[in-house]
Parts: sequence; structure tokens; C-alpha cells
Amino acid sequence: MTTTATTLKGQPLDRAILDSMLRRRMFYTPSFEIYGGVSGLYDYGPPGCALQANIIETWRKHFVLEEDMLEVDCSVLTPHDVLKTSGHVDKFADWMCKDPKNGEILRADHFVEEVLELRLKGDKEARGQKFEEKEEDPKKKKKKHKGIEAVKLDDAVVKEYEEILAQIDNYNGEQLGQLIKKYELKNPATGVEPSPPVAFNLMFQTSIGPSSNLPGYLRPETAQGQFLNFSKLLEFNTQQMPFASASIGKSYRNEISPRAGLLRVREFLMAEIEHFVDPEGGKHHPRFHEVEDIKLKLLDRHTQLSGKTTITEVSIGDAVKTKLVDNETLGYFLARIHLFLEKLGVDQTKIRFRQHMANEMAHYAADCWDAELLTSYGWIECVGCADRSAYDLSVHAQKTGAPLIVRERLDQPKVIEEWAVEIEKKKFGPQFKKDGKAVEAAVLATTQEQREKLAKELEEKGSFTIDVAGVKDGKVEVSKDLVSIQWTKRTENTREFTPNVIEPSFGIGRILYSLIEHCYWTRAHEGGDEARGVLSFPPTIAPTKVLIVPLSSNKDFTPVARKLSQKLRSLGVSSRVDDSSATIGKRYSRNDELGTPLGVTIDFQTIKDGTITLRDRDSTTQVRADEDKIIAAVQSLVDGKKTWKDIETELPAFEGQDAEVPVR
Amino acid sequence: MTTTATTLKGQPLDRAILDSMLRRRMFYTPSFEIYGGVSGLYDYGPPGCALQANIIETWRKHFVLEEDMLEVDCSVLTPHDVLKTSGHVDKFADWMCKDPKNGEILRADHFVEEVLELRLKGDKEARGQKFEEKEEDPKKKKKKHKGIEAVKLDDAVVKEYEEILAQIDNYNGEQLGQLIKKYELKNPATGVEPSPPVAFNLMFQTSIGPSSNLPGYLRPETAQGQFLNFSKLLEFNTQQMPFASASIGKSYRNEISPRAGLLRVREFLMAEIEHFVDPEGGKHHPRFHEVEDIKLKLLDRHTQLSGKTTITEVSIGDAVKTKLVDNETLGYFLARIHLFLEKLGVDQTKIRFRQHMANEMAHYAADCWDAELLTSYGWIECVGCADRSAYDLSVHAQKTGAPLIVRERLDQPKVIEEWAVEIEKKKFGPQFKKDGKAVEAAVLATTQEQREKLAKELEEKGSFTIDVAGVKDGKVEVSKDLVSIQWTKRTENTREFTPNVIEPSFGIGRILYSLIEHCYWTRAHEGGDEARGVLSFPPTIAPTKVLIVPLSSNKDFTPVARKLSQKLRSLGVSSRVDDSSATIGKRYSRNDELGTPLGVTIDFQTIKDGTITLRDRDSTTQVRADEDKIIAAVQSLVDGKKTWKDIETELPAFEGQDAEVPVR
Repeated sequence: MTTTATTLKGQPLDRAILDSMLRRRMFYTPSFEIYGGVSGLYDYGPPGCALQANIIETWRKHFVLEEDMLEVDCSVLTPHDVLKTSGHVDKFADWMCKDPKNGEILRADHFVEEVLELRLKGDKEARGQKFEEKEEDPKKKKKKHKGIEAVKLDDAVVKEYEEILAQIDNYNGEQLGQLIKKYELKNPATGVEPSPPVAFNLMFQTSIGPSSNLPGYLRPETAQGQFLNFSKLLEFNTQQMPFASASIGKSYRNEISPRAGLLRVREFLMAEIEHFVDPEGGKHHPRFHEVEDIKLKLLDRHTQLSGKTTITEVSIGDAVKTKLVDNETLGYFLARIHLFLEKLGVDQTKIRFRQHMANEMAHYAADCWDAELLTSYGWIECVGCADRSAYDLSVHAQKTGAPLIVRERLDQPKVIEEWAVEIEKKKFGPQFKKDGKAVEAAVLATTQEQREKLAKELEEKGSFTIDVAGVKDGKVEVSKDLVSIQWTKRTENTREFTPNVIEPSFGIGRILYSLIEHCYWTRAHEGGDEARGVLSFPPTIAPTKVLIVPLSSNKDFTPVARKLSQKLRSLGVSSRVDDSSATIGKRYSRNDELGTPLGVTIDFQTIKDGTITLRDRDSTTQVRADEDKIIAAVQSLVDGKKTWKDIETELPAFEGQDAEVPVR
Repeated sequence: MTTTATTLKGQPLDRAILDSMLRRRMFYTPSFEIYGGVSGLYDYGPPGCALQANIIETWRKHFVLEEDMLEVDCSVLTPHDVLKTSGHVDKFADWMCKDPKNGEILRADHFVEEVLELRLKGDKEARGQKFEEKEEDPKKKKKKHKGIEAVKLDDAVVKEYEEILAQIDNYNGEQLGQLIKKYELKNPATGVEPSPPVAFNLMFQTSIGPSSNLPGYLRPETAQGQFLNFSKLLEFNTQQMPFASASIGKSYRNEISPRAGLLRVREFLMAEIEHFVDPEGGKHHPRFHEVEDIKLKLLDRHTQLSGKTTITEVSIGDAVKTKLVDNETLGYFLARIHLFLEKLGVDQTKIRFRQHMANEMAHYAADCWDAELLTSYGWIECVGCADRSAYDLSVHAQKTGAPLIVRERLDQPKVIEEWAVEIEKKKFGPQFKKDGKAVEAAVLATTQEQREKLAKELEEKGSFTIDVAGVKDGKVEVSKDLVSIQWTKRTENTREFTPNVIEPSFGIGRILYSLIEHCYWTRAHEGGDEARGVLSFPPTIAPTKVLIVPLSSNKDFTPVARKLSQKLRSLGVSSRVDDSSATIGKRYSRNDELGTPLGVTIDFQTIKDGTITLRDRDSTTQVRADEDKIIAAVQSLVDGKKTWKDIETELPAFEGQDAEVPVR
């Protein structure tokens, strides 16, 4: 298992060089840069936008189409009441500290993490050991050691720090405050201890309508819209369970101090699935057998709490059998998430599934596993897979009275015998007047045992006394002409239940960035200039599939390039013509950086005999054949039906006009 | 030319019935309905969501891929400064009135329109004429005549009202206020005249970051993100002009009183193109010749101002020649928009292009044409095509100093002779101290004529006097040791210019709703029950392509249905299995309402000989053949390569298990 970030070819990953390449090729760029930018907001340029669209298309095929999910598109603007009920108004917060000296606002967990890591580095320095910079930015070489003092720590202290870091996501605000006090953690920028952590709600607030009287938020997740539509979706699915809804759309979180590029942003694209399942019967999944042999790398809750990060590699079938993963449906989705990431081209040695610890889980979750990808920023949560139990449907149903439930016809009717209460409404109201509802509620809230006792009292004394908070002296007498309690028998033909929800939730931007790191490597060139970047995206995912390069600016090449580009377009294959005056080598190099898997050259031979060359981005080898054969090869490569090795055996090799032959 | 809304088959369109069908089939539904809903916010259910995705995919192919546009995805959250510069903070507003009696907030132009239309209807009633209800809701039959009093108006007044209505979009707030006063327009709900119109900014406001110190808005259009990235996009396009960027994403407008379903909402999906073009040389378009013969129905500005709505049908080539449409690039996009709408399945008799009047145009526009579609709500603006001139790039460049310009190498260097000013910086600063910049600016701002005069003065008197506002008494003397003014000659090798922008801007929700109305019709049934709805979407656009119907719940049918569905999926054809217990007729009828173009039945014959039937939604005729032939037929229909007529001639007809045969 890899533990530090490398390129696809195992080279050390130099993030500054990669970042500058991504900027230059406009994968993404800080939003509003000419206005100085706003942290946590990014724009995707053409290659980033195409990459995002291809990831989304793959996601839609892999999940929505493959499993007949019901895709919906719900409002981002959400009124206060909805998010109050869901718990987000009260609980969707991070812990924030303020530096009293310079006013800097710090995210408490990040602050504790940063200072402890600095101390551990200082310790290693004092012991004369080398350490790896986790978030080193070579552009800032001078600042590299800022905050690090070469101070040797006791072995016991080192162990304490490491154990804290292994479960850093498990602390609440109070606990983070205690850590700051206990270890006297100070802001490296000022040398001052920050204020105790306070909760900061992460939702963006606005108001809806002209009179500003309807407070609302930008949704922090797409899930709520799906829950609120549950009854309509069940009806659309002709009342059949289980089923899943899905949604792709933007969500918003007002991060305290965004950092790490695309990995922690304030506006982001999510793809979320809500799979609704009967909570009884073990949450089986009808297609679990299709995935049970798939092996996953798991980091469970107990391992983390013991201060370790050891991975268990195990088939999902065994993981569910041993209850390491709670149930089949959760397990099914973990395996499907794994297959999806594999399809995108994620490096298989850089995936793990990490279970949330109790305090770390969102307020609604019963269990949660994150698919994490290893990048130069460390292990990054890219997909969450939570069991939200019946939490959301229950709270919304309770608040609104909407029946967010499933009614299932029972094969065998169920006979129920029990003590039943009947209220004489006509007499009850006039008797208790304004207290009527409270008294009625108290009577109806009684348990079976209590009812049995009250029934006896009614029979023996003709009345009973019951506690009703806030009415008279808290005791109310109810006589038998107002209420009857009888042992009754009834038959139920339907069963009602609130489904549980398994929620796989994908952060598309984080997946996109991690994928870029996993596909990136550098190639040395014979020219002796510095190594050139390559992004080896799978052809299905690559932003553009084919680069068309006329050898020179000769006018005869233009119509050939245009026609070829049209033919490819009609086959659904995206291409770009580069007829700039740069050398062929430079033009190919530019497209290696863009991750374009195939290149076609049009030269003087093309004009004579109609043959063109096809170049493979990863090996830089070329073949030459007539246009039809090359187009067929392109299509089979882009569809994933053939590999470059297949093409090399089918079509004659070509070595020629590529002036700058790279060292492989 | 059609002038009132009808179904696809020319039947009168009953909107209440259509609305209820769209609700039942979950095309869309009010957001947060179980919380009482929020006006102007809608969720798309599975068929609406799929329809939207297909419209977007068609748009991307028709525009972005076909013309190599640079697609970007920019932030929705936008800081205040950007929208202040663009003019939206000051000018992006509607006029709002308040009813002093009940506090109701009215959009001023809609209010004037509504009251005048009521009076015209009252006049017709008084004259004993029939009138058509434009926004009648049959559910509210009782309220139908609310506000209408049968009062006969003078013929001259009728004409005045009609002329006002023909240019209702042309009035500003003051003018609307004058109309309210002049005609004593009163709120029908209270009988009271509302307060004078005030501007209400339509942007949703929020604040970014933990200390709430960065005010921002949700973008009202996707355009600004594209403009701010202009220099990077030009660089990405290897400095070549013209080029276009494009973006698909949500935008937000805090409508004063949303109404008319999907047509006026607060959150909506837009697809926008910014085509950057050299303002010199007539804004030619290299592909204009491909579209010049396409005929469009145009309603120009002058016709509207004369109080009429007469259409001119003319080829776009002639329209540009006669300057009815300003230039080729604008004309090219009008024609391309027309072709796009045609591809979606919009009714060709229900499209027109309407030119904006001067006051109606957005603050940035130099000219603008709307593609309008006729619906039961009247003519609806679905696509705007504006010439934004150099407005946006200029104001952002001016504000930020970023060079949002094109530098073009001149084929022939240009020799320029002129009076040039040279400042002696070293002496100038010490001489004027804090006023130095102001004086320098005043000197540099001089015209050629002025410079000639000043040069003479310098030569003759050794100094000149110049007006500098705010410095001393407004007059400043500048001596010849501080500045020289000479007749000079220089050669320019490059030309710098700010491109103009042609912006086709698509409201996807409005197109989607209008398309539904255009594709809707009802079919009578032999059973005698009420007519059933059909949505005749083209197969490429339809939410789901194939309905798979097992004849009964017989277990043998299940694997056949599943296998068929998998085969179709691998061909990229979306299908849905309906194995509910409803009759075949009912199941087909449900899918006619969903707009599914094809239906496949699996019956006992299928188990015997592997043949299946294929049903056409629009004609309800069926053919029967073995699975491979049927799948081939499905694919050719969905790709648009064959029509149902072709299939009927190729495969044997089938008449059978469809129990409820419709009357055609």
C-alpha cells in the first residue's frame, strides 16, 4: 500500500510543477482572479469542464442507468424551516477560534493538527531524522521551516501526539479547546494562544422574495430535496421498494478557511444517491452476490481509536459476514463505489475506505464509510457512504404531518390484541374545555400496562386519576362516561414503515483533482530540457479524445483536418485541431499535458495517398494507415473495446515526423 | 401563423388538464411542497430531469461541439465588486408597487398589463363580444370574471390601451407610474391605487466567509464568469479570434411575484454563449453562408412601437442585407437558434423572433432579439440573442486594470504621425508634489488640436497654462523644462482592440415547458372514458426511449425483460420495465403521458419463438419480429436514422394483445 503521494510512474510528485501546468492549461483557475479572487471559489476552464462532464456521464451510467435510479433536480435555495428540521441550522457547523492578536480566524481542528505536526517535525529535526513535508510548497521554500523549532520531545509525548492526530476528526469543540489548553498550542504566526472554539454554521444565508421575510439558505447537500419528494418518488416507482433516487448538482458550504485548492471549496458539485430500504430483514441487497468477491482496503473505527491506521484488505462478502461492514446494502454500495473509481482511472494502490468515528459522523448518520484517495495533501475523503437510518424521513414527517412512509400489503394479515382507549369526544371537550387536548394526549400516551391498571380502576371506581403536566395541580380525574378502555382484537392487512436510507455521496471536484494527481507523471526528453508533464487519463474520461495536427500551415492540410474533425464528431468523438505554428513535438507535448490520448498527423503523404498517422500519448509510438482504418482504431480505443497494444499489432508502425523523440 | 395556444394536433389546449398530468407523472413539482412550498421554486422529477438532460446534451452537440466553443463552469457565488462594475447592483431591477391597503407587492408592469387587459375584456363583454381568457385556470372557474366589469370604452381608449400593451416592456418606472395615475389603475383585489413604482434589485444577497465581511450575490447570469476569464480563454485558444466560450449552469433572480409555473422562477438553468468578435470590418461570420437561406419570422422594434405585432417572414441573408438584423454574426446565431429549437421538436408555427425596444434592453445591450415560443401563457421569451458590444470587457478592464483586449499583429505596420507629449518625471513630481498626478493626467488628456496649440505656446513663451480641476485655482502653469510636445512619427506593428460580444442566452426551463406544450395532444379512446394525454417528443429528446411490458406477472417473463433492458442499455438506449399489474393498455397509456416513443411487449409467444412486438407511441401501430431485428429498429429510430414509416415497411405488422384499442 502506497503511503506517500507519487506520480503514476512512482516518481516523487512535485505539486508546484503540477499546479503550474494545470493553471497554464486552464484545467481550473481561481474565480474572479482579476478582482483579487475569493478563496474557496474556482472556475473550470475547457479541459476541467470536459473532464467534469465525462466523470458525471460515467457516474450517471454506472449508477443511475445501471440501477434504474430515479434522478431528480431540486432547488438549491432552501427555506429555513426545512434545514431547521433536518438539524442543519443547529448542528451543521465547524469549530472556529480567533487569534486575539491579529484577528485571524482559524478552524480549530486544522489548527490543532497543524501545531502538533509542526512539533513532531521539530522533534524529528532535533533527533537528526529526515521528515517529509506533507503540504510543502516549493515556491515558498524560504518559509518551509516556519514554525518548526528543533525541540526534542519525550517518547511518551510523541506517542500522545500521534494518537491525537490519528483521531483528530473525533473531537468536539470542547475537547479541541482542552487540547489547546493542555498542550499550550499557539498560532505560529503570532505566538499567541487562540480563543476557545465556538461553533460556526457553514450554510450561506439569504432571503427569498421582495419583502425579505422568508429566510433561506443555499443547500449544504442535495439530499433534503430527495427526502421531501419521497412520497411522490415512491408513487412514481409504482409503490415498489427498495428503490433509489439520485441527484447531481451544486451545494454550498461557507468554509472557515478554505485551502488545498479544489479539495476544500465553498461551492462544489455533488452527486448523491438516496437508496430507500426496509429497515427490517437485515437490509439485504438483491444484487449483493454480484459484488461479494470484490476486495476492499478497510480502515475501521476501532483501529483509528487505538491510534493506528492499519488497513485490512478483505472481500466485501466477508466484511459483511463478520459485521465489519454493517449490512449488505451498505456493503453493496462500497463495492460499487470502488468499481466506479476504478473505471475513472483512479490508482488502485491509492484507495482506502475509512469508517467514521462516533463523534465524527454527521448528526444524521448511523454508520459511515469514506472512500479516501491518497494525494499530495494526504488521504482525501472523496465519497461518503452513510447509513442515515430513518432520521430524515422521520423528522420531516413529524414536522409537516406528511406520511413519508411505505404501506406494504401483508401476505398474511396480522391479528393484534391489546388494550384500546376510546374517548367520548362529545362529553370530553365540554368537561375539560381548554385543557381537553392535553388530557386526551395524556390518556392516549399510556402504555399497555398502565391501560390495564386504568381499565381496572374504571371498572371498580368508575373513574381514574392521571398526571397531566400544567393542568390544575397536575392531577386530573377522568370518569367512565368520558372514556372507555377495553381489551380488543383487530386485524391488520398492511404494514407501515419508514424506510432507512443508505447514502453514497460523491464530491466531484475532489474526485477530479485526485484523479488528476493519480494520472500525472513526467517524461524526460532527449532535447535535454526539463521533463514534460503527461496526464494519462483513460480515453473514456479524457477531456478531448483526439488532437489533429497538420504538419505545417500549408493550405492543402486545412480541408483534410476539417473533414476528419467532422467525421469524428459524427461518431461522437471529440477532437481539436492545432494548426498553430509550433513544432509538432511542442504541439504533442501541449496535448500530453491536456491528457489527450490520441494524436493524428496530416502531412504531405496524406495529400498523396490519404494515409494518416495515429500517435499514442502514453507510449508515444505511432501507426500509419488510411483514414478509415485510423478512424475505426480511434473509435475502438475511445469506446474502451481495444487497447493501444491491439492497434499496434493490427496497423503498421510509423516512425517519422515527430522531430523531438522523447526518451521513454 | 398560429396566434392562440393549441395542442400538437390543433385541439384547444386545456392547461389545467395538462398541468395535472405533468404533476401526476412528476415532470416537475413545487419545491418543499410538504412545507407549503416557496413560489418560484420547482423540483424536476425523473421525466423532467431526463428531458432537461437531453435538451442540454442536444445543446452541447449543436453549439459547443459543432463550433469548438470553449466550455467553462464558473462560480455562482459572486462578490459585490464584480456585479457593481457590471452594472447589476445599480440597474438589475424590476419596478415594484405596494398596495397600501393589504400590503400586497405587485410587479408594476404586470400590474398595468393586468388591469388594462381586464378593462379591454370588460369592454368586449359590454359590446356583447366573446373574449378569450389568456391565463384562465379552470380550477378557479368561480373567480374567472373577478375584476372584470362590463364597461364599454371609447374606441379611442381601446386603441390607446392596445398600443400600450404592444409596448408594455418599453416603459421605465416613472412611465409606469404615470400610466397608473393617468388611467387610475386600481388593484382588483382591493380597489385601491398602488404606491408609485420603486426599483427592486433582483439579485439574491449573501455574505462569504466566517467574518461576514465580503458581501456577495448569486449570479443573475453565467456571462460575467466568462468575461472575467477572457484573457485566459484567448490564451487557451492560442490567441486566435473570433472564438466563443459557453457555459451551462444555474442562475438566480429574486422575482417580485413569480407566476406561470416554470416560466418565471427564482432559480433556473441557463446555457449561455459569449462569442467574441472584432468590432471592425462589419462583424462577419465565416459560416454565415451555411445559414443565409433559412427563413425566420421576425417582429422588429419599429412595428412594436407603432402598436402592432405583424410578423415579417424573411431569409436571414436578406434580413442582414437590409439591416433589419444588424450584422452577420448576430444573424448567424439567430438562424442557429432556430435550427436548435427545430431539432428539439418545437412547433415551427409557434416560433418568432422579437426585437427589443430601446428601454426594454438590458443595460449592457446594443441590440437584442428574443426567440419567443407561443404557449397558453402567450408568447414566451425562451432565448435571448444580444449584442453586448464591448460593454462588459471594457468596464471590467477599466475597474481592474486587467488587459481584456486582443493584440493583433498587423500584416502591414502602420505609420502614425502625431503630436506626442513627454513628461520630465524627475522634475514634474518635485514641482507639483501631491498634485503631480492630476496635472500629468490633464496634460495627457489633451487632444491633438490642443497639443498643437500648447506646443506653440511652449516654443513662444517657454510655458503654457492648463485647466486642472481641484488644483489651486483650477489653472496651472507648466514650463518647458517639465514637458515637451513634439510632432513625432512612430510605427505600430500590432493593433489592440476590445472585442464585441454576441450573446445567445437560453432559458432551459422555459424551453422545456414550451416544448411540452408543443408536443402535447389528447387521444380519444374507444372505452369511452376521457381522452388521454400524449407527449410526442422526438425520440432523441424523449426522457425514456423504450417501455418494456411483460404481458402478465408470469415469472418466465422477468429474465427476458431484464436481458432486453441490459442489451438496450449497452447500446446507450434508456428503457424502463413496467411489470405492474395494470392492463397493457393502461401501462401504454401511462407511457404515452411520459412521452416514451416506443413500447416492447413480452408475451407467451416470446417464450416460444423469441419474437417481441414493438409499438409506436404516436400511431399506436405495432410490428413483431425477433429480438435482434426489433433492437436494430429501436436503435435506428432513437438515433433519428429511420422513421416509424420505414419500420412499418420493413417488419410485419402485429395486431393483438393491446386490449384497449384507441380511436385514432
